[in-house]
Amino acid sequence: MNASEFRRRGKEMVDYVANYMEGIEGRQVYPDVEPGYLRPLIPAAAPQEPDTFEDIINDVEKIIMPGVTHWHSPYFFAYFPTASSYPAMLADMLCGAIGCIGFSWGCCLGRGSNQPIRCVQSLGAGGSLEKGLAPACKPPVPPYLEAASPACTELETVMMDWLGKMLELPKAFLNEKAGEGGGVIQGSASEATLVALLAARTKVIHRLQAASPELTQAAIMEKLVAYSSDQAHSSVERAGLIGGVKLKAIPSDGNFAMRASALQEALERDKAAGLIPFFMVATLGTTTCCSFDNLLEVGPICNKEDIWLHVDAAYAGSAFICPEFRHLLNGVEFADSFNFNPHKWLLVNFDCSAMWVKKRTDLTGAFRLDPTYLKHSHQDSGLITDYRHWQIPLGRRFRSLKMWFVFRMYGVKGLQAYIRKHVQLSHEFESLVRQDPRFEICVEVILGLVCFRLKGSNKVNEALLQRINSAKKIHLVPCHLRDKFVLRFAICSRTVESAHVQRAWEHIKELAADVLRAERE
Amino acid sequence: MNASEFRRRGKEMVDYVANYMEGIEGRQVYPDVEPGYLRPLIPAAAPQEPDTFEDIINDVEKIIMPGVTHWHSPYFFAYFPTASSYPAMLADMLCGAIGCIGFSWGCCLGRGSNQPIRCVQSLGAGGSLEKGLAPACKPPVPPYLEAASPACTELETVMMDWLGKMLELPKAFLNEKAGEGGGVIQGSASEATLVALLAARTKVIHRLQAASPELTQAAIMEKLVAYSSDQAHSSVERAGLIGGVKLKAIPSDGNFAMRASALQEALERDKAAGLIPFFMVATLGTTTCCSFDNLLEVGPICNKEDIWLHVDAAYAGSAFICPEFRHLLNGVEFADSFNFNPHKWLLVNFDCSAMWVKKRTDLTGAFRLDPTYLKHSHQDSGLITDYRHWQIPLGRRFRSLKMWFVFRMYGVKGLQAYIRKHVQLSHEFESLVRQDPRFEICVEVILGLVCFRLKGSNKVNEALLQRINSAKKIHLVPCHLRDKFVLRFAICSRTVESAHVQRAWEHIKELAADVLRAERE
Repeated sequence: MNASEFRRRGKEMVDYVANYMEGIEGRQVYPDVEPGYLRPLIPAAAPQEPDTFEDIINDVEKIIMPGVTHWHSPYFFAYFPTASSYPAMLADMLCGAIGCIGFSWGCCLGRGSNQPIRCVQSLGAGGSLEKGLAPACKPPVPPYLEAASPACTELETVMMDWLGKMLELPKAFLNEKAGEGGGVIQGSASEATLVALLAARTKVIHRLQAASPELTQAAIMEKLVAYSSDQAHSSVERAGLIGGVKLKAIPSDGNFAMRASALQEALERDKAAGLIPFFMVATLGTTTCCSFDNLLEVGPICNKEDIWLHVDAAYAGSAFICPEFRHLLNGVEFADSFNFNPHKWLLVNFDCSAMWVKKRTDLTGAFRLDPTYLKHSHQDSGLITDYRHWQIPLGRRFRSLKMWFVFRMYGVKGLQAYIRKHVQLSHEFESLVRQDPRFEICVEVILGLVCFRLKGSNKVNEALLQRINSAKKIHLVPCHLRDKFVLRFAICSRTVESAHVQRAWEHIKELAADVLRAERE
Repeated sequence: MNASEFRRRGKEMVDYVANYMEGIEGRQVYPDVEPGYLRPLIPAAAPQEPDTFEDIINDVEKIIMPGVTHWHSPYFFAYFPTASSYPAMLADMLCGAIGCIGFSWGCCLGRGSNQPIRCVQSLGAGGSLEKGLAPACKPPVPPYLEAASPACTELETVMMDWLGKMLELPKAFLNEKAGEGGGVIQGSASEATLVALLAARTKVIHRLQAASPELTQAAIMEKLVAYSSDQAHSSVERAGLIGGVKLKAIPSDGNFAMRASALQEALERDKAAGLIPFFMVATLGTTTCCSFDNLLEVGPICNKEDIWLHVDAAYAGSAFICPEFRHLLNGVEFADSFNFNPHKWLLVNFDCSAMWVKKRTDLTGAFRLDPTYLKHSHQDSGLITDYRHWQIPLGRRFRSLKMWFVFRMYGVKGLQAYIRKHVQLSHEFESLVRQDPRFEICVEVILGLVCFRLKGSNKVNEALLQRINSAKKIHLVPCHLRDKFVLRFAICSRTVESAHVQRAWEHIKELAADVLRAERE
């Protein structure tokens, strides 16, 4: 395909996309297919000769769409929102064309000759692995003028500052002032949690070995304990597994929030048992029920105990751009790292998970044991950022373009209006539920999620959910809150309006009546 | 922005992209900017009111493009190629519109009622973290009909089979036959290496604890050793750091390949010291010089010693679709996992890193310690794949669309022709170098990379590279091979032709003459 055919097909694809988005309400939100539906529909091997574009685009409707759950349908109320907006899609087209691999600004350009030659490191380790160290820096060297992706790196740095300012994050987290903090785009909140845990692990190992050089890494790791509330996302558990450390769940209170007393109790018990608390994930807006850990209580304890505090606001974080919700972020000043997903609720298409740290050398240090590196890094001017040392993968797309397009084309006010509309719709649904005495609201509705259920057994609620999802007019997923089986109604789509919420509620009420009738019979 | 404005702006963007690609040869491959260039060019905070699309697209040329290294310029010969093709861009547009988060096919649909409720796990852990176990399964439950992304999951499974067949991978790696193997798209080779290491770590811990239940995880991890050649990519070292295990570099031979004798020696020495070898990364096509570890020697040793063998062919893997290069993959039958990056050299835009395992429960088991899960998993029908258990992040884009579009619109023959053209161009450059007695070729040229240098000191070669990159007509990066400073000339761009290679060589020769003249003076 050459450029002129791309012009034609690209414009056809733009229309296909626009048609899809405009017509999504007419598509059944939830697919009818059975597992294994797709394989029989396509050949067992790639074609030897090219197929035509027409063949492929026809197959999209015939083969792909029947198996798609339409996450952007206004009748999709499952999980949490995943962002979708036209400006983000336009930016992604540009990102694909530039197609740079933004693993670093570059390496030697603009640095003093006593700076490490990171270019060589990026190309291969070569020789010093044996000692478990990063390849040694070999100053002085001439500048090779290696700049992999200056624009990609610099726009990311500035966009993370824009976003941090929208949230009124403490200045310590921003790149702006050539301080020690900074922001980075990760692929997902899971990666952010993992990277924070690894940074905390390296930091505590260094600290303990500095005090007691005879301690081995394994001897320390055996005693390390990380914490989260019992409502935290499963990715916290995964991070613990990957990092090879214990993870303990702090029992949450009646509002599903982590509080000081339960944390203190766990810390006392674990320290008495010889364990070393080192890492805490506090969640603002849990995935199950959008509850908020009490940062103002938990934060000071973490600081006092030298426990790295990572704040995960994957879903809720976007709301903090509205002054009326900013108080939910109070206490972030105690955190070492903070993360939320603009790709959930801030109209920036997946993937774009925003993470800030107070001290960037803590992050970059997680992947290096070489003390000389750390020394150099402290001397960083703040002008050059090598993001590949901030994350698990080395390569990265030009993701900040999406933020730039979205923030500019909506403006802060447009983004705030979008958040407010979703919160208003969830309260609308809440009040509909509250008007029906057969139902109960299970958790205070704070943002765009309503946890509700039929008063009665889990069985009757399971039956209701099964009817809802079998009917396929709307889509919900459940959660368990303590012993209760609960339905989650999350405002998700960019195009959802009051009418959709009303229709969804009418539909749920009808099915509930069927369930209750069936139960009585 | 509504759908009708997107139709207009999207088509403008298609033209912008086509213009950019058509005109890329006329842009200076390497930017003139200094670190920190971008921040003064844009406001310090996001606008309150929306900017117009015109403002933004104008700023792309004014602010972004001056800081872009044009990775797709036919004068870009640095690193390795990063893939770019029109069919992949079209697929990415569709991917953005569907915008599903493909963390799983779904959970209960089609499973027996004794299967785990993974939906609840995906929403939050809830309660059983304390024991370090995945949330307990609570059968029997009704099917909630939760299908997050059937098409996304199924197309990926089939595309990984298509690709595996193109490479003539052993059948054990394919999903097709409801066997134990399968393929998954990871974001990068770094993630594939990490996931393989974690799987191997879990497996060896289980095995040793089954034999000696008194062994703690920490006691085992302290003794675990992973291996790679001293030419392996730095991401292998990072995987070791993240996984908390020792990593040792096996000295490569004169052709920069890992061989049996050096490996045997290391194994004997380490086992005698009480260490436990458990993981090996063999590289096919190293990043430094595209050397190949000797799989036929290393593979049987790993199998005999119960060492997980991960084969990393990040760059070279794409070439194995050509029968004349397939022999380079011989020995993959000894591997437990295999990975290469279609996003490097197979025209599928970043990110798309293809990974296969012989036993998928090894991968999924890496993130779970719950033995019941493993038991269930073995019973998998092969019809449902929950890819979130195969990778670090939980969410994922619909990346298989890019593979589907590219494989169909090029056809296998078109892809083979593309690989062959690149290899031919590298040999053309090689023969130009060989004709000039001032230069030497440093490593056998097998695929699209030529490692060369001026006969003489490192200093003179450093000076040459500095002149090349300062002139900014072409872009190269260096590597170190043993004590030698070497220039890497990698055929990268989709549109590079013989004329570009010839011009690049003329340019290098002129600059070399300047360097040599300056040295004599």
